Amino acid sequence: MTRPRQRPRVDRKNLIIRRVSTYLRTLDHLRAEGVEVMSSRDFEKIEGVTQSLVRRDLAEFGTFGVRGVGYPVGELRDQLARVLGLDRRRNVVLIGAGGFGSVLIHSESFRQRNLEVTQIFDQDSAHIGGSIEGIAVHDMARLEQELDARSVDLAIVAVAPPEVQGVIDRLGRLGVRGALYFASRPVKSPANMVVLNMDISVELGLLTYLLD
Amino acid sequence: MTRPRQRPRVDRKNLIIRRVSTYLRTLDHLRAEGVEVMSSRDFEKIEGVTQSLVRRDLAEFGTFGVRGVGYPVGELRDQLARVLGLDRRRNVVLIGAGGFGSVLIHSESFRQRNLEVTQIFDQDSAHIGGSIEGIAVHDMARLEQELDARSVDLAIVAVAPPEVQGVIDRLGRLGVRGALYFASRPVKSPANMVVLNMDISVELGLLTYLLD
Repeated sequence: MTRPRQRPRVDRKNLIIRRVSTYLRTLDHLRAEGVEVMSSRDFEKIEGVTQSLVRRDLAEFGTFGVRGVGYPVGELRDQLARVLGLDRRRNVVLIGAGGFGSVLIHSESFRQRNLEVTQIFDQDSAHIGGSIEGIAVHDMARLEQELDARSVDLAIVAVAPPEVQGVIDRLGRLGVRGALYFASRPVKSPANMVVLNMDISVELGLLTYLLD
Repeated sequence: MTRPRQRPRVDRKNLIIRRVSTYLRTLDHLRAEGVEVMSSRDFEKIEGVTQSLVRRDLAEFGTFGVRGVGYPVGELRDQLARVLGLDRRRNVVLIGAGGFGSVLIHSESFRQRNLEVTQIFDQDSAHIGGSIEGIAVHDMARLEQELDARSVDLAIVAVAPPEVQGVIDRLGRLGVRGALYFASRPVKSPANMVVLNMDISVELGLLTYLLD
């Protein structure tokens, strides 16, 4: 998982944000289970992050919880969602309606996080004109005409590796400000665009390293 | 992307290893393009990591390249593959032959990295008895009887979120030492097992944070 154009300081902040994102995930699950109050020790037990690190991470963003009592689950959940910018709805365009894209769109992560896929594009005539979850699949060749760029907050780019850079460039020119892609290759981020990458080969490299 | 039971120090080392993994990815691409020598500046241009960080990361593992000349692409590629433990073949068991698993198995990341899927298990009768890429899909209910645990190095766990913990526990009891899973939830790692998680919701939280 790399952020193109990263600097070490940004990298450190990104790490904190990723951990906060896992705390939010834990809070979502606990809230769903009806748990009302939790402690740093619970985070340690559930996420394997030490209590002191949880406290230090949260202290970056304000004062949460009551000493000796714990964190109110629902309230902390909403506060962290606000920190992450997930407290309001974000519209997502999905580029790529193939196997991977169509699995992604069913992910529980989207709706739970206020992320709504509002448009889908694909270059394959087998998908164009069809729909996934009731959302029409548009022709990638008509991205410039049909993308509702003003209402789209971010793009999920699930296309074949050789296509990724071209797709990101086109989205950047249209004014899309953020994208997440999955190919195992670097991408140059257009100006004013945040581009993140989830690369399974990077994680597999870490796994084999840790196994030795 | 989190490592359960992480400690801050391990976390820092993991970051270095993930970056080294991206350097390997870059070297793979350059080698495929016939490039023979590259510089730290090329890494900066391609991966967006500063030259000084590239040099610091590589210095953790030895002396590479020739000052004023650069890095020999093929040699550095093989050296970093050795660092990551990717210089020898690793056998992978894929748990979950559904949409996501079947996309994963076609990923170019596997073969390029000496990772070979040797067994597949699924609980769905629609998949059991079939095959993907010529590899038979076994019944998950018979994992204990049919997993060739001595020859399997790591597991890719592409099952529904509620199933993940149970699958990881069973793999741990069978002696599988490493696993990568994709569900948006924490998992308790069995003793002597390294469990990594790629969670799209964590990355989406970082993306929305950076967009604000």
